[in-house]
This record gives sequence, structure tokens and C-alpha cells, in this order.
Amino acid sequence: MTDHAIIAELAALLDATQLAAGDAALAFDRDHSDGTGQGVPIAAVFPTSTDQVAAVVRLAAKHGVPIVPQGTRSGLAGGANAVDGCLLLSLEGMTSILSIDVADQVVTTQAGVITFELVRAVAERGLFYPPDPGSWAISTIGGNIATNAGGMRCVKYGVTGDFVRELTVVLASGEIIRTGHRTVKGVAGLDLTSLIVGSEGTLGIVTEATLALLPTPGEPCGVLAAFPSPSQALAAADAIMATGRRPSILEYLDAGTIAAISSFSPSSRLPGGAGAALIIQSDEAGRAAADVEEYAAIALACGATTVDIAQDAAAVDAIMEARRMLHGAMRAVAGASLNEDVSVPRSRLAELLNGIAAIGQNAGVDIFSAGHIGDGNLHPIICFDPADAAAVATANDTYQHVIALAISLGGTASGEHGIGSLKRAHLDAELGPTVRQLQRSVKHAFDPAGLLNPGKKL
Amino acid sequence: MTDHAIIAELAALLDATQLAAGDAALAFDRDHSDGTGQGVPIAAVFPTSTDQVAAVVRLAAKHGVPIVPQGTRSGLAGGANAVDGCLLLSLEGMTSILSIDVADQVVTTQAGVITFELVRAVAERGLFYPPDPGSWAISTIGGNIATNAGGMRCVKYGVTGDFVRELTVVLASGEIIRTGHRTVKGVAGLDLTSLIVGSEGTLGIVTEATLALLPTPGEPCGVLAAFPSPSQALAAADAIMATGRRPSILEYLDAGTIAAISSFSPSSRLPGGAGAALIIQSDEAGRAAADVEEYAAIALACGATTVDIAQDAAAVDAIMEARRMLHGAMRAVAGASLNEDVSVPRSRLAELLNGIAAIGQNAGVDIFSAGHIGDGNLHPIICFDPADAAAVATANDTYQHVIALAISLGGTASGEHGIGSLKRAHLDAELGPTVRQLQRSVKHAFDPAGLLNPGKKL
Repeated sequence: MTDHAIIAELAALLDATQLAAGDAALAFDRDHSDGTGQGVPIAAVFPTSTDQVAAVVRLAAKHGVPIVPQGTRSGLAGGANAVDGCLLLSLEGMTSILSIDVADQVVTTQAGVITFELVRAVAERGLFYPPDPGSWAISTIGGNIATNAGGMRCVKYGVTGDFVRELTVVLASGEIIRTGHRTVKGVAGLDLTSLIVGSEGTLGIVTEATLALLPTPGEPCGVLAAFPSPSQALAAADAIMATGRRPSILEYLDAGTIAAISSFSPSSRLPGGAGAALIIQSDEAGRAAADVEEYAAIALACGATTVDIAQDAAAVDAIMEARRMLHGAMRAVAGASLNEDVSVPRSRLAELLNGIAAIGQNAGVDIFSAGHIGDGNLHPIICFDPADAAAVATANDTYQHVIALAISLGGTASGEHGIGSLKRAHLDAELGPTVRQLQRSVKHAFDPAGLLNPGKKL
Repeated sequence: MTDHAIIAELAALLDATQLAAGDAALAFDRDHSDGTGQGVPIAAVFPTSTDQVAAVVRLAAKHGVPIVPQGTRSGLAGGANAVDGCLLLSLEGMTSILSIDVADQVVTTQAGVITFELVRAVAERGLFYPPDPGSWAISTIGGNIATNAGGMRCVKYGVTGDFVRELTVVLASGEIIRTGHRTVKGVAGLDLTSLIVGSEGTLGIVTEATLALLPTPGEPCGVLAAFPSPSQALAAADAIMATGRRPSILEYLDAGTIAAISSFSPSSRLPGGAGAALIIQSDEAGRAAADVEEYAAIALACGATTVDIAQDAAAVDAIMEARRMLHGAMRAVAGASLNEDVSVPRSRLAELLNGIAAIGQNAGVDIFSAGHIGDGNLHPIICFDPADAAAVATANDTYQHVIALAISLGGTASGEHGIGSLKRAHLDAELGPTVRQLQRSVKHAFDPAGLLNPGKKL
């Protein structure tokens, strides 16, 4: 069947505004990742209901057309990039929050809702959705589920998957299923919900989700601690994690990222010349200020030169705003960057940072590091001049070395961004051939024709 | 091949003490469940290492012998019961805690370690393993993983699966794989770890696990609140869950279970004539006493007639000891009982309790209820005279009605005990045919010959 005929069939299913065919689809052909390629799609479609998604998938299945599910394409691993001859199936139009259940502390939402919009909507009802990926102002709940997205609050609250109760999923056949349970506990059948979370659209297309919520926590207090060296900051992080408390945020910035943000935004409160910094928060009702005093004392005992305590929301926000400027600041400084997402057991972070420094030195490449030090998830940033082909090649090579280092330390190629097309080459080293084969068998059980997001994740 | 020849091959792999053949195997042919049957095994084996497990599985696979994995057989759903001609593969001999990593807050353990032993061992290093199934003094970590066991602390900390980072698994082929990651976050490949948790030995045999730990929490304080009626206790539980805190324990006892425990153990502090009671705890460091004062005030505002506050460990233990007497007390009162494990969204608990009362009244059967009200997981107990065949039939019928009621309220047949052989009949109603078929396809991807725990879970 010709592309033209397939587009005609799609046009019969959807409104004109829900279909971008041919060249018009190219605007949607990739995500925010660097270092990934994309194919040429037949069309992009924008269904607004689970039934429409199912109808589109049945049509694609009938004609053997690959499907690439998409949210707002804010991903960083190529997971939403087009493959040749595919249908881009965007969930962007599924933007309804279906219900907020205050008594059971759950929200049921369509997949295209922007994460921060959901956070805001449940907050208005006195409830709290903790996962806060850096992209939350632009990424969708469906995309967060597809990648099992993390964020800064994970150190205390866990990742997206920890909050997913039920999923409505369109299978490769076009059948609609509901997985999981609205209840807190439930062990009927195999846990397909957890299997689908993080599967990057390779097992099914998530159209709706019921997510667990918590009561609103206390007003956060925070502290920004500056250290002469990374090792002192690491020691302080270890000591903080060994207390009986879990900080709600425990972020690390190295000298290079501090300097970049400080020069990008001179009004930021970051300690310009520091060798490293920690941002630590507590959101424990009735205890946050005392927690933060304790964290500040630990930082000082570990060699912090300054501790800047934020006792109110405005002061806490000012610190977080500086942290959130990281990628803008790095882009301003470096022209282009490759952003890593490695994770290691926290005890191996010192080796990881030392190893990254050595890799950068050997290659003559600047690598700056920041990230979620409380859970061992670091985002090393490799800077390069995109106009210099040799520099691009060196940066790519360096990127691979950092991933190999993390895996050698008992870590992983991706803590929260996903595998997409960018990191598939590392799965053999990390998982081994037997697990890889088992994963392909599971994929086959869901999608025997291999039409769902081919060439990604697995 | 004859059973005799298979036993001879097993004898060549294992020490004499690791093999019970023929009649000697019958001592291991079932778990603690009522209402489940068992087949006749060929033999029971007691390997002590992953390599021995793999050797046994390869042998069984070669001869097409079904394998039933077992821990200490404390399960309540028939999951560990023999099927005819099977090999009972017990992990009871794998009792080593392999490492406790204080810095990364993880423990790596063999599957046969008793849960409470693990809790105690990590506590000695200042760490905390929260899952506390009622059977923790006799059940194994491997069994807890197989059923995704819950417990009383789940209301705050989550279930067993929430703490599983890595698994060592012997596949149906005898191949050994490692799933998951030692890191807090990790999204490389599909999440086979979560899929295997709760799969009751149908996908693979878990021989080792790395489990996440927390720092030791504060000393718990608690309150035992007595109410005239169940509805008042439910209202208090709702109000407590709506605060910004998560109680570490929130248990419910109805009039019948209170009376049974009080008469079984007159020295218990339970409020003998109450219509319902809640046991509520906080283990928040530096805040537990204040939390419990708040919980007590909420209970009184909801109509509690007495609140008995336990400010020290001895007083807290006395209350918990009474709660833990539940099953002994019911057995003393009732002769025999069927123990349910239904879970519903918390907002449906009132309908569940009312419906159960109606079911009991219609059938002329006593049903008592207690359980983890904070997470909606209730354990209704159906009492009957085991010598009276008609009473046994009525009890079984009643059991099915309670499960159907829970499912109709958006709940599940099992919150934490598992499906085993006992509740398979309910999966169609709960999951529907498409999901059931998908689960069978996943099972087939792991175990194409269907040798792992056949007739269970799925």
C-alpha cells in the first residue's frame, strides 16, 4: 500500500487538525537529544482519545507500518525520533486530567498532560506528585512513564514508576488493556505495569495513567553549601545520607558548573569560586528548619567554607532557580554539549568523578559534572565546538568512555533519561547476552511484528 | 526416564542431606494455606548455592520434570504446593547474608534467609529493612520476593518489591542471570526485576537478591484507639491519612477480632468491648510523640472512646504483640478459618465492610475483619467447623463472595499473599482475557516448556 493510501485512511479516522502528512510531519521527527539520527516519517497523528489511538494502531498494524509514540519530544536519548516510513503517534493532544481523588490520593490523567500542570492541579487539592524531572515544564506524564523519569526529589521519594498504579495501554494489535490496580497493594497476575514503565513505547502505547499521590509536604527549607573540593562535598553527602533523615533534595555542582551558572546569571547566589557545592533541602513538616540546620552543620564539619541557609520559599526558590539554569548556562559557555546520565552506587561516586577528570584530561576535553548525588545519578556534561569535526568526534568518543567507566563501577548507562537510540550499543556490556535475549523474547510477546518504536531501547 | 533414574541423577549432584526422595519428600508437599490441594512430588532438593540450583534445573529441564520452588512454605495461597511428578526445589538451605553495604545502604542475601533475621542483621549495622509480613519470623526473603509480600509498615514504606534492586535468577533453561541494578536509578533495558517480583516462581527461581535499606528510623510511639463502631474507626483512618504525615503503622481490628484476642490473652491491652480499634504508630525521629498526640486527637474527634498512648518501646511492643496474636486467637475461637487478603481503594473500605457483614449474615457465617486499613488491604477471616462438611462448603462459598465483592469495588483478590493455586479462578474476572493472554505470552517467553511452578499464579 502506498504512503498516500495510508494517509487517506488516516484522514478518514481523524480531523484534519490531527494529521500532518509528508513534509508537514518533519517538524515532529526528533527529540531534544544530541548525537542521534532520525528517519523520514509518513505522517504524524495527534489523537485525543484512547479509542482514536487504538484505531490508528489497528490501521498501522494492518499495513505493517512502524509506530513511534511521542509526547512533547523533550527526551534526551532519541527515543521519540522517527524511523523511516513510520507513523509518528503523538499523545500531545491527550491533555485532560480525568479525575483527582482526594480520599484515595490518586490522580487519573491522559498521557499528554504536562508534568508540571499535573503537579499544580493536584497541589490545588492539597496533594503532592513528587517526580520532578528537569523537563517538567515541557515534558508529559506519558513521556515520564515511557522513560521512568527521575528528578531532584527522587532521593527521598523515588522515580516516576514508584507512583504508577494503573495504566491504560494500546497494544501493538490495537487492543486496549488496563494494567495494575487502583489499590495500594495488589499481586493478581504478573506485574505488567512495572514492565511497561520505562519501556519507551516498545511494548505498548500508554494513553492514560492512575498515579499515586501524597499529602502536601511541609514548606521546604534549604541550604547551599560551598566546598573547596569535590571530595569534601561527597563526604558531606555521605554523612547526610547516613542520618536518620532523607533530604528531599541533595544536588551536586562542580566548580565548572558553578562558574558557568554564576557568569550566566551574576545575580544567582551560587558561590562563584567554590570547588564544589551541595544544594540540600528538607520538606518535613514541623522539622524542615531543624533538618537543614543539621545538614548545614554536617557540611561545615566536612569542610564547607560557606553555608547559605534558605528559610523561606523565596530563598529556596532562588537557589533552585540557579540550579535549573544549568543547561542554559552550559550552552552559553560551551556552544554545544553532550549530556550524560550515568548512575553508580553512591560509594563509587568519588571514583566516577576522578575517572571522568582523567578521561577529560587524556582527551583534552572539558567535562563538567552536576546531578543527583544523593541517589548516585550524575549528569556529566561534555563541551565541544560543534563547528569543529574533530572536536565533535572526540566528544562522542569521550561520551562512550564515561559510560563504560560508569558500568565498570557497577553503574548504568542511564539513570533517568532512557536508552532510546543513543545508548543501545551499551546494553550488551551492561546486561549481557542472556538477559538481552530474554528482553527480546518479552518484546516479542507484546509486539510480534516489531512495529512499536523499532530500533529503540532494546 | 523413571523417577528412580532421575533421583539417581539428583543424588549424583547433591549431598545425601540435600535430597529427600519418594515418601520422604511428602513432608514438604504443601504450604500453610487452607483450601488448596497438593500433588505427589518425585523428590525435594535443598541446594545451597546458585550453581547447585542451576544444575538441578538443567537436570529437570532435560527430563521435562516440573519444578516447584519453595522457601519455608509459610505461604497462604498454595503457591508452594507440589504438583504431581514435580521436583520440590527448596531454597531453605541458602541462608547466607552475603554482604551489608553501609555506605550504599543495600544488603545482598541468599534467598533462604529468614526475613526477621535479615531485619535484625541490618539493624545491627544501623540500617532498616521495612517490609514486615506477618510471617516474618518464619518466611524467607525469597518467598517474600516471590509473593511481593506486604506487612504492617507498608502504609508508610511500601511492599517488598519497592526494596528489590537486583536479583540473581535461575531461568527455566538452567541459565543464571542477574537483573536490575545496584544503583538507586537505572533504566537500561526492560524492568525484568519488577516482573519477576511477585511472579511466584513461574518465571525463574530467585536465588540471591540485593535489597535497598534505609537508615534506622526513630523509636516508634503508638496509640491504640477504641471506637464504638467501624465507621468511626474508618473516618479516623481517613483523617489520619489526610494529614501531611504517613503513620508507620495503621491497623484495624473489628469487634470480633478484639474479643477473640482479649479472651485468648486476657493480659492484652485491647479494649475488650469496643466496636472497632485502630493501632497507629509513628517512627519519625524527633517527631514520633507529637505525631501520635495528633493521631490520638484525631481519633477522639472521630468518636474514639479511649486512646491508649504508648510512649516507649515496651508499651509499643505490648500493643503489637496483641495484634500479632490475631491468627492464634481466631484458631482458638473458631477451630478453622479461611483467611482472605482482599485490597480495595481506601475510600471503598466502608462498602467492603458493610458488604462483608451482609454476606456473612446471608450465609449464616461469622466473618471477622482485621488488617492494614491504611493501605486498603483487609484480612477478613471466615470461621467454620472443619468437621461439618456443609459448614466447610458454605465457608468456601462465602470466601468466593468476598473476593467478588472486593473486585467489584475496584479491588483485588490478593493484596499481599499471592494467587498461588487458591485464587486463580478469580483472575479472569479481575484481569480480563486480553491481559490474561498477554501474561501467558510473557510466561512463555521465560519458560516455553511450562516447567516452572505449573498451575500457579497465572
